[in-house]
Parts: sequence; C-alpha cells; structure tokens
Amino acid sequence: MLVIKILNNNAAFCVTDDGEEVIVSGPGVGYNRKIGSQLKLNKESKIYRVKSDKEQISDALLNIPTELLEISQEIVEYAENMFDKKISDILVVVLADHIMSALQRQQNHLVVPNLLLEEIQALYEKEFLIGEWAIGLIKERLNLVLPRDEIGYIALHILNSGENINSAEAVQTSEVVAEIIEIIEKNHHYRLEKPSTQYNRLVTHLKFLVQRLNKQEQFIEKTSNSTYEFFLKENPSLEETINEICHFLVTNYKYKLTTEEKFYLSIHVNKVIEKGSNHF
Amino acid sequence: MLVIKILNNNAAFCVTDDGEEVIVSGPGVGYNRKIGSQLKLNKESKIYRVKSDKEQISDALLNIPTELLEISQEIVEYAENMFDKKISDILVVVLADHIMSALQRQQNHLVVPNLLLEEIQALYEKEFLIGEWAIGLIKERLNLVLPRDEIGYIALHILNSGENINSAEAVQTSEVVAEIIEIIEKNHHYRLEKPSTQYNRLVTHLKFLVQRLNKQEQFIEKTSNSTYEFFLKENPSLEETINEICHFLVTNYKYKLTTEEKFYLSIHVNKVIEKGSNHF
Repeated sequence: MLVIKILNNNAAFCVTDDGEEVIVSGPGVGYNRKIGSQLKLNKESKIYRVKSDKEQISDALLNIPTELLEISQEIVEYAENMFDKKISDILVVVLADHIMSALQRQQNHLVVPNLLLEEIQALYEKEFLIGEWAIGLIKERLNLVLPRDEIGYIALHILNSGENINSAEAVQTSEVVAEIIEIIEKNHHYRLEKPSTQYNRLVTHLKFLVQRLNKQEQFIEKTSNSTYEFFLKENPSLEETINEICHFLVTNYKYKLTTEEKFYLSIHVNKVIEKGSNHF
Repeated sequence: MLVIKILNNNAAFCVTDDGEEVIVSGPGVGYNRKIGSQLKLNKESKIYRVKSDKEQISDALLNIPTELLEISQEIVEYAENMFDKKISDILVVVLADHIMSALQRQQNHLVVPNLLLEEIQALYEKEFLIGEWAIGLIKERLNLVLPRDEIGYIALHILNSGENINSAEAVQTSEVVAEIIEIIEKNHHYRLEKPSTQYNRLVTHLKFLVQRLNKQEQFIEKTSNSTYEFFLKENPSLEETINEICHFLVTNYKYKLTTEEKFYLSIHVNKVIEKGSNHF
C-alpha cells in the first residue's frame, strides 16, 4: 500500500499493490507520513474504495450529451451572474444529469409533480426565475417544452448548491417569523408545540406574509370588516396579540396589515394557542 | 484527434495530440466512425473540454474527508432501503460535499434558514425523515449538532436526486388539487389566474388538505359553526362550490370536511374567484 497523498492526520490517499486507488483512514495514518512510503494496515484501518465512485461519476459525465453539458453550463453562468457569486462546479454535472432525466421523462410522457412549486415561487423568487429561464433555454436549444414542475426542480438544484447565495433575505424572513411567534407565545403564556401541523401552517402563513412585507405588497381587501369583528367577538383573547403583531410590523418594517391580513393571521393564531387541542 | 468513444451520431469522445480528453460535437462526428480513428475538425465542430470539469469533481472528491464520504454513503443506503430503489451515485458526492459545507457553516456559527422546511415536512414526509436520520448520524459520528434547517437541505438533495421515487403520492396530490380547481372554475365561470399570489396560496392550502386526506386526519374543530355561517351569509356564492368540493372528497376519497376545513377552504376560494380583484 503506497501513500500518494496525505489528507489529514488520520487519512491518506493510497495505491494498493493491485493498483487500485483507495483512501485509508485510521488513527495516525497520515501523521508524519511521507508520500511514496509504504503503509501497513492494522485492525483500526478502514479502506475506502473511492475509485468506483469517481469512475461512476466520470461515466455519468461521459454519458451526458455535450449539448446538455453546454446548456447546463449556461444555466450555471446565468445563475452566477444573477447572484454575482461563483457556484460549485459540481452543479454543472448535476444539472446536466437532471436535464437528461427530465428529457427521458418527457419522452415517456411522465410528469413528476413538484409539490413545492408554488412555495418556491413565493419564497425563492430568484431561483425560480433562473428555473424559468432554464426551461426557456431548453425549449430554444432542444425544441422541447418541459412541464412547469421542472422549473421547481431546477430551482431546487440552484438553491441547494449555493445555499447561502440568498441568505440575507432568508435570515430576515426567519427572524421576523421568530419574533411573531414570540409575541404569540408571550401573550398567551403558551409554548407552541413545534413541529405540529398547526404550527407548520402558521409558519407557512407568516413566511408568505414576510414576502409581502419585503415587497410592501398588500392583500386587496375582499373580506368585510364585519367577518373579522365577528370572529374576534367569538375569540376575544386574540385581539391583543394581533394588535401587538401589527404594532411590531409597523414600527420595525413600516408594514401595515389590512383587515383581511389581520383576519387570516387571527385564524392561524387561534389554531395554535389552545393547549391540548392542537394534537391529533 | 483520436476517437476513443462514440457518444452518438453527432458527438464523440476524443483525445487531442496533447493528450487532453475532449468531447467533439458536430453533424456526423460520430456517424460510422471507428474507435481509434483520426478525426479532422471542421468549422461546425465544437470542442468541449470536459476534462477540467471531471478534474474539478475528482478534486472535490479528494478534498472531502473519508469520514464524510462514508456518512454520505450510509445516508444514501438508508434512503435506498426506505424507497426500495437505487439512487444516482452522484448523490454520495453531492451529499458529502453538502455535509462538508454544513460543518463549515456550523464552525462559523452561520445558520442559513431553510424557508421550505415546514412544507417539506408536510409534503415530503419520507425525505424529511431521511434528513432527520442523517442529522442524527452526523451527531453520532462527528459529535456535531446541525441546525434543523439542514434536515430540509438534505431532504431536498434526496428529493432532487430521485424525483420519481415518491411519484405515486405526488401524482395523486396534484390530481386532487387539479380537480378541486376545476370545480371552483366551473362553478364561478372564471378561469383562475395562474400563477398569482392568491392562486398559489389556495394551491398550498389544497396540497396540505390532500395530505390530511391521505392520512385520514381531521382538523380539530376550533372555529364555531357561527363564524362560518356568518362568512357564508356575506359571500353566498361560495356555498355551492364548497358543497360540491365536499361531495367530491366524500365520494372519491371517503374524506369528510369538518366545518373548520370548509371555513378555511371558503376563505381561500373567496380570494381567487372575483375577476379583476386578484392582481397587484
């Protein structure tokens, strides 16, 4: 077993007597070791046959038609421009591999619904736009119209490969959500059960609310004042909480909730606040 | 330029005189061509230097500590067992690369919120469970507790790498959603604007509803009958639509909506049905 690269104190890249490339890990394997030296295995050594994985990936790469690699490269460059940030090279291959599967599904008239499509569009707008652009590019180059669901899958690949490219907005969104949850918990002296179906629905609602806040969008009023008033009369403990959330959003984000938004918020809050009744 | 593998009629894998591995594409490049034959380039030939990508991926692979590759391999095997299906080998590397970034973020006390966390948990339960299991494995092996958001990122990697592993359920969900949308459109003689914020919110609500339907879960009643009745009195055109949706769900899925579910549904439907008022 010949050492050809030291990875760290406890791991080294080696070549076996049969010429197979392996990674050997174990206490002290890489410590003070010279490249080209012989390595003896002991009981604690673990051999990781990395070669097969590498070969499989190279094969995967070879099986992807050039045209798809080029398209994938263009999508990654488009995304890099949009985020003004370098994205991991692995994405080119992953995306090309994905497009190849998408084309195969298309040929077999198989649609795999993307259940996160609407949420991605609302919460990860840029990634969704890149997905839309990608679908357009594929149509132009290959004369193939992929289903809308594929926009979502491509957007998820972008999101997953450079998770922190959009982090400032995501951090703000989750901070605002956390503050509102705190107001609810404080006012009702009740620690919300997390995760639970009701809690998750409330958080989804709040994330969408913060998106509107970021764009300073408002719901168009459709529900009359009277329904909200009726609802509050039936659930009087909600009023103070909603008012406090309103105050928090106006003070910190200059965002004024409409009656309709207060109504929705009160419905969601109502579902999470009563101890013992939010289980099933 | 020596041909070493034919990809298809219009592409071949070659080695240049400098020994560089490239893919050459162009009309007829691979047609009737023998391996080992000389290829002359012309104006239409495109050379794709695939080697650098492959090298970058091999390098990426080499830079990932063995331990992480092993953990990643275990997660993929766990997922394969859960879905009883082989998952693309690329996932092992992608996931190991992801875990490495997650550990770096952990060291820098950086949390990148995952805004899709609650939705993944509700809509892709199995993938979420695999993510949870993975976080547990990482804790056990590396004594590091990753934030909950990472469950969501790992789940997305699983989802994205084998999109059709869970397709039957996803297909059913999107079919039920489509049928309900159709009932709404037919009853109100109005083609819903897609995508729009209101439409997306309605679809999100319906997807969660189908999840409850699949599990035969019910909302615990918290809103009184009277609020729903008050709301219907104010918006009388909704009643028939809601009743028809109820009938559809009972007949086809033996799922009976509670008053509370009818109330939420009617609120969401109300937001999308009036032409001209759902834009901003």
